[in-house]
Amino acid sequence: MKKVKLCITVAALVVSSTVFAQSTKVKEDFKPSEVNQPRKAFPQVNSRGCVRTQISAPEANMVQLDIGGVKYNMVKDASGVWTGESAPQDEGFHYYQLNIDGASVPDPGTKYFYGAGRWGSGIEIPAHDREIYALKDVPHGLVSELNYFSDITKAWRRCFVYTPPGYEANAGKSYPVLYLQHGSFEDETGWSQQGKANLILDNLIAKKKAEPMIIVMDNGYAFKPQTEQAVGNPTRPAMAFEEVMMQEIIPMIDARFRTLTNRESRAIAGLSMGANQTMRIAMNNLGHFAYYGGFSGTSNYPNSDEIDVETFLNGAFKDGKKVDQQLKVLWLGMGTKEPEPFPGSIGAFRKMLDKQGIEHVYYESPETAHEWQTWRRSLYQYAQLLFK
Amino acid sequence: MKKVKLCITVAALVVSSTVFAQSTKVKEDFKPSEVNQPRKAFPQVNSRGCVRTQISAPEANMVQLDIGGVKYNMVKDASGVWTGESAPQDEGFHYYQLNIDGASVPDPGTKYFYGAGRWGSGIEIPAHDREIYALKDVPHGLVSELNYFSDITKAWRRCFVYTPPGYEANAGKSYPVLYLQHGSFEDETGWSQQGKANLILDNLIAKKKAEPMIIVMDNGYAFKPQTEQAVGNPTRPAMAFEEVMMQEIIPMIDARFRTLTNRESRAIAGLSMGANQTMRIAMNNLGHFAYYGGFSGTSNYPNSDEIDVETFLNGAFKDGKKVDQQLKVLWLGMGTKEPEPFPGSIGAFRKMLDKQGIEHVYYESPETAHEWQTWRRSLYQYAQLLFK
Repeated sequence: MKKVKLCITVAALVVSSTVFAQSTKVKEDFKPSEVNQPRKAFPQVNSRGCVRTQISAPEANMVQLDIGGVKYNMVKDASGVWTGESAPQDEGFHYYQLNIDGASVPDPGTKYFYGAGRWGSGIEIPAHDREIYALKDVPHGLVSELNYFSDITKAWRRCFVYTPPGYEANAGKSYPVLYLQHGSFEDETGWSQQGKANLILDNLIAKKKAEPMIIVMDNGYAFKPQTEQAVGNPTRPAMAFEEVMMQEIIPMIDARFRTLTNRESRAIAGLSMGANQTMRIAMNNLGHFAYYGGFSGTSNYPNSDEIDVETFLNGAFKDGKKVDQQLKVLWLGMGTKEPEPFPGSIGAFRKMLDKQGIEHVYYESPETAHEWQTWRRSLYQYAQLLFK
Repeated sequence: MKKVKLCITVAALVVSSTVFAQSTKVKEDFKPSEVNQPRKAFPQVNSRGCVRTQISAPEANMVQLDIGGVKYNMVKDASGVWTGESAPQDEGFHYYQLNIDGASVPDPGTKYFYGAGRWGSGIEIPAHDREIYALKDVPHGLVSELNYFSDITKAWRRCFVYTPPGYEANAGKSYPVLYLQHGSFEDETGWSQQGKANLILDNLIAKKKAEPMIIVMDNGYAFKPQTEQAVGNPTRPAMAFEEVMMQEIIPMIDARFRTLTNRESRAIAGLSMGANQTMRIAMNNLGHFAYYGGFSGTSNYPNSDEIDVETFLNGAFKDGKKVDQQLKVLWLGMGTKEPEPFPGSIGAFRKMLDKQGIEHVYYESPETAHEWQTWRRSLYQYAQLLFK
């Protein structure tokens, strides 16, 4: 087991904590994380991005903080309270958990988010650009929860719909729509909770940097009853999602909300698995979408080889000139710290675009990996280019 | 510590489980709870309402299932997986948690709900009348999340707003509004999550048993900056909530949604602490509300003494005839299994109403205590009487 302890635990060494902290460079300016539960003092984050948490477990043998793929041993004090810190984390949002004598559980100090295939703890490392998704005194849109039954999957599904500020007041106005998808092991809650899509748009619209738009956030897992077993392999979802999107979600949204229904008023984007899915959907349905955004993903994932335009997505990029004309914006982005296969596969995709003469926007999120800060920034960039 | 074990743990006794189960009357028809996380097999519930859960904690010394005020010891098998069962629980929704070597944590098998002052595990014991809040193939309203800044509390607040089926399509129609409040140590998420208020109304409206209405679910904790310390004593909230309700929430809702703004089109109700709060608000503002619902609570709580109408709520019930004329419905309800001081205080309140000649509706939820099944049923009953 790999163990990194750049921020050394000091809880059991209160008497000598100052000296100890100096010698091991623990920056003692920890503050409660902004996604803590009400009145919970822990977890905390310091100015170097170290996470410190604390839990009472008097009878436990070992408690660990499990974040960023590393398990950090925590230390018990005389009252049975365990405290421990992580190494510095990248700015932005991270999933994590505690391990108590072998049990992986959420930290009872935090609010919970769906990711990594579970509802679990999250922590927010304040980012230098957190203003883009801060809750500010600007007009706020609504995020609405909509339950619907899918005849294709024979199951209840749910989406969240952002309607921009002014939607209720301007009863005669119709709006363009962005369909925005989460990644693997995430769900329809991701973009409005950890993604803060609503706040990003509220802020952009207040500054007139983005057009008022509706955003639809649905669940990318959609399987027909006979292919239910595909649930166990969510990185390769059966393509029922495309059917659900085109035959059920879009008609439902157009019927229920005041939408503009021409292709120039409809965009689609997704992150990771959602980037892969939405690229396929966009390219199979260019009559319905004029904007595509791929955040940390492309449909050649995980392959870094040169793309054969004859066969890739059934030749969807073969006529580069036509694709270039039809997609008003083809947007790609990723974090500078993303591991393979993302740089390789996205790089190969971009080379294909260049070869085919298809213009695209490429963005790199500084110092972030395959995580939500990359995708918040991607949405912030992408949304400004839509419907103009 | 009180320990009840009507459903004996059998996980460590797999070989002899059948015999053991028979001798101790464990009914082996457990099924996953309907509020489990996706693809999680545990916790489970059997037909007698016993809860069985399971967690891997190979190094733990003791793991307990903590539900209904009782901690049930779980038993470890050879692979390090702990399993345990509770005694039968009342039908409906319950909060619970696990205890691992002294650490109180959420069960990683369930979705999480805000109650008991924390985000934690919930379980659903299928109720005989669960049809009233089942997700059915009927038209569904929206539940919208609205962030707003309160000048009174100088803080960001949030409410959830249910708009009924047809709200978007009938752009010329205005709707009556029910303001519906949670209980102590709960928040604005309670009524749409564990309360299922939206599904209860969707089903009632589909059967034409309730008028289409808007429901506003806000947070009953509202403190001015200088009384922030009152947060630690939430059963006696400072009355800033009334100011927020009357001066901020209602005007905001009337401005943003298509509401009917006469008093006959505005109802208020709450559960427990919310019943107490909303009774005070209704009686102080009878010009604004014509309907009051108190679910498991009244403003004389926790007192069971005879009410002095000269002093109670500043004499609000002194002119019984006027109150009787102004409140089109005064509705009270509670569960038959509720402990004191609820029966006593609600009973004393009802005696006062009778003495003052104030008509009221009284409902008892069969075989439920001070929990959500009582309040789901209360809303189901109360909503049918509104705006008619």
